[in-house]
This record gives sequence, C-alpha cells and structure tokens, in this order.
Amino acid sequence: MTNDLDARTRFAIDLARRAGELGLKYFRDLENLTIESKGHQDLVSDGDREVELFIRAAIAEAYPQDGIVGEEHAAVAGTTGHVWVIDPIDGTANFVRGIPAWCVVIACASNGETVVGVIHEPSTGETFHGHRGGGAFVNGRLITASKAASLTEGSVGTGLSNRANTEHVAVLIRAIMAEGGVFYRNASGALMLAYAASGRLLGYVEEHMNAWDCLAGMLLVEEAGGTVLTADPTTVIGQGTKVIAGGKAIFPKLQALCVEAFGR
Amino acid sequence: MTNDLDARTRFAIDLARRAGELGLKYFRDLENLTIESKGHQDLVSDGDREVELFIRAAIAEAYPQDGIVGEEHAAVAGTTGHVWVIDPIDGTANFVRGIPAWCVVIACASNGETVVGVIHEPSTGETFHGHRGGGAFVNGRLITASKAASLTEGSVGTGLSNRANTEHVAVLIRAIMAEGGVFYRNASGALMLAYAASGRLLGYVEEHMNAWDCLAGMLLVEEAGGTVLTADPTTVIGQGTKVIAGGKAIFPKLQALCVEAFGR
Repeated sequence: MTNDLDARTRFAIDLARRAGELGLKYFRDLENLTIESKGHQDLVSDGDREVELFIRAAIAEAYPQDGIVGEEHAAVAGTTGHVWVIDPIDGTANFVRGIPAWCVVIACASNGETVVGVIHEPSTGETFHGHRGGGAFVNGRLITASKAASLTEGSVGTGLSNRANTEHVAVLIRAIMAEGGVFYRNASGALMLAYAASGRLLGYVEEHMNAWDCLAGMLLVEEAGGTVLTADPTTVIGQGTKVIAGGKAIFPKLQALCVEAFGR
Repeated sequence: MTNDLDARTRFAIDLARRAGELGLKYFRDLENLTIESKGHQDLVSDGDREVELFIRAAIAEAYPQDGIVGEEHAAVAGTTGHVWVIDPIDGTANFVRGIPAWCVVIACASNGETVVGVIHEPSTGETFHGHRGGGAFVNGRLITASKAASLTEGSVGTGLSNRANTEHVAVLIRAIMAEGGVFYRNASGALMLAYAASGRLLGYVEEHMNAWDCLAGMLLVEEAGGTVLTADPTTVIGQGTKVIAGGKAIFPKLQALCVEAFGR
C-alpha cells in the first residue's frame, strides 16, 4: 500500500508539472485564448479544458480503473475506490488576465479520504506535494505550517467565489483586521492553501470550496503539522466543503473568525 | 532630454534586474535572513537593507549629482532636480515569509514629476517599465490598462498598511463586492499597480502609499492609457499620497469607491 501511495505521488507530481507546461503554452499566448463565462466572475478558457483533458488521459492510461472528478468535464466512475480529483487551472481569473498566480491541482482520494495532494505553480516552478502519513514538501524540501498563535503574526488567506455570501466575506475581513490581522487574497485558493501548509500564511478560510480546489491543499496543511476542519468524506467530493486550515496554535482563532463571519 | 530619459530608463531596468538577482539570493536562504519589526505588521530584513545599498551605490556612480529617496535609508539630496525614489523590496511581508510576490521598484522624478518607472518581479522574471511620454511595457511588450467600465468585469487591487484606517478598508471591500466586483490583495502594492497598468486588474486604490511604493506604478498606469489621481508634486515624495489608478472607463467608479470608503 505504501509503495502504491509512493507511486501515485510520483505520478501526480510528474503529471502536474507536465500539465503546468501545457498550461504555460496557453498562458504565454493569451491573445488567442478563448474565454467563456460560466456565471458571474466565473470564467473558463480552452486552456482549462485542454489541460484537464491532458490530465484525464494520463490518469486513464496509468490507472484505468480509478474514478476521475474534475472542474471542467463530467465525472468518470471507477471501481478501485480511488478517485482523482483535479483542477487543471486553479485561479482561472488570474490565468485569463495574465496574472501569474495560478496552479495545477491533483488530489487522489481513497474511499473519500485524500491520500495524495499536489499543487504546482508553473510561473514560479514551485511544486507542493504530500501523501497521507508522509509529510509535506515544496520542491522536495519539508514544509511546516505556522507556529503562530496570534493573528498579529501574519496573514490569513481567503477566497471569494460566485457561491460566496459577500456579506459574510465582508464580516470576515473586518474581523481579521479587528484582531490586528491582515487578509490576503491572490485569487487562487489552492495556492493559498499551499502557502498555509508552508507557514507563509497563518491559515486559510473560505465558506465553501469545491473538492478540486481544496482537497490537495487540505492534505498538505495536515501533513505539514497544521489543523484542518474535517470534511464529510461522504459528501466532500460531490458537494465541496467549508474550509478552515492553518497552524495548530492559530486554528481556534480561525474557527472563531468563521463563526463570526459565516455564523457557524 | 529624450536621450537622457532613454538612458535613465535603460539604466533603471538593468539596475532593477541586478537588484532582483541580489534579492533572490536572500529569498532563497530565508532561514538565515535577519528580520526586524518596524511596527505592527511592518517588517524589514537585511535583504531589504542590502538591496537598497546596492541600488544606491549604482545610482551614486552613474548619476552622482541626483537625489535618492528610499524606504530603508536616509534621503540623499541632489543638485540636478532629479530624484531617484526606490523600494528595494516591495512586499517585504511576502518576502520574509517565502511568498514569491515581491518586487524591486525604481522611479526617477524630475522636479516632482515621475519620468521613469520600473517594477521588476524576480520570481516570475517580469519587468514592467515606462517613461513619461514613451508608453508602458512588460518585458518589452506594450501594455494597456483595462478598457472595462464595470466592476463586474474584473478585480480591484487594494492594500493594507500599518498606516491604514482598517475600518475604511472594510468599507472599501464591502463596496467593491456590492457592485459585483472582486477585491485582490497580494500584499505588494507596486506589483498590483503594475497589474493595473497591464489591464490584469481593473485598477488599484489605497488610502495612503509612500512614494517609493507608488510612483513607478502610477506612471506605468498613465503611460498604459489609464487614469491616475494626480498627486501633489510638492509633497508626494516626502509624504506619500492617496492612490487611485486604473483604466480610463473604470476610474470614476474607483473614485466613487474611495469617497465611500475614505470619505474623500
């Protein structure tokens, strides 16, 4: 089983990097990118779609019996209990406008529990990876979540999707600042979760994230010694989850912020 | 004069890139970085100080009669009417925590008017530059500010310094979202101004920025066809300014947001 997990991890790292190279080709040729709106401030490009097809084809070849859930195409049911959960380009709004903060996200879940997580940022060449019980790393170096106990010691990442209650987000921002904290939003939730795993942010909170945006990063935070709100394994892949993730000592404060902002 | 401006621009681009290389050496060795607090969430590292000394030495050699104003060391008075206004590392909070979004900022003002602006992001290799009347560029390619007229068409960058009235920031965030907009904060004001100049963000607003953080980016936005709130040339270098900068069509909406949030 450990060998299998190692193999899946190596496969996911290599795949995320190759997918990132493909994504960069689209990113460097933005003038010819086809962009569509999926709803208010929710964009998709042919880059997203093509990178997802590339990732799906690689998974289907290496693990033909596994399931696949991705942002841009229909889910594929599997028979092994393993499901790959992928976001070809997290931070599409950045991507289509030329902001380099976007990433490829590949997670693998086993019976609802995330066991492998990879987040790769092509613009900086950073690859964050971890597997259950094996620690978390960036470009092979061990990472650890923040040890801070006060919001005055760093920044808290948050997100804003078209599913968000904007009033809740406004309350959250005010609450972070009221505690002497600083908010951070670079418009790639997965990247900010990777930053939380590496202690660059104190943590990350968002009222709702889709599974492809959050599963890899949540595993990274856990494996980096942080604390994560446990998602319901029976619904998270299909319905997403609230996300609270960060250093162990700051986690209760992040939870309190969420109660204040989201009412729960 | 144009030849002089061209020469100063080429000098500033080359210098920003060399300073960025030096900054990267510190960034890649964060474990050995010495970090001090200048106040609440206001940090400085030996990286900031050494990169500024490097930039100052290069300016003193090339333009010995010019003035120099920088974030980390005392101002140098000049005799030519030209003042170099520099931030060795904009986004220090990112830099010291390992977040790659930081940049070197070099502006040159002539009798209070910014005539050259360069913003270089070492982690992505992007160099934004412009000089008065000469257009704005990223890595040599022409850039233009956003053509959008509605906040629903993109994101608005903002900042949060230890000089900010956090209640004002909270009102601003709420007002952006109330108009169907999205806020963006990657903790490097200069980088976000460069993104506004290149149309990646609709614009950028902050109640107060220091001259070394904003002069280069404000020139870039103007040279990219955008609109910028005019700063008082007699006080901006010494005291900083309120910043409103963005595409021509969105500018009135950015101004309205600032009236609502900052009361002016």
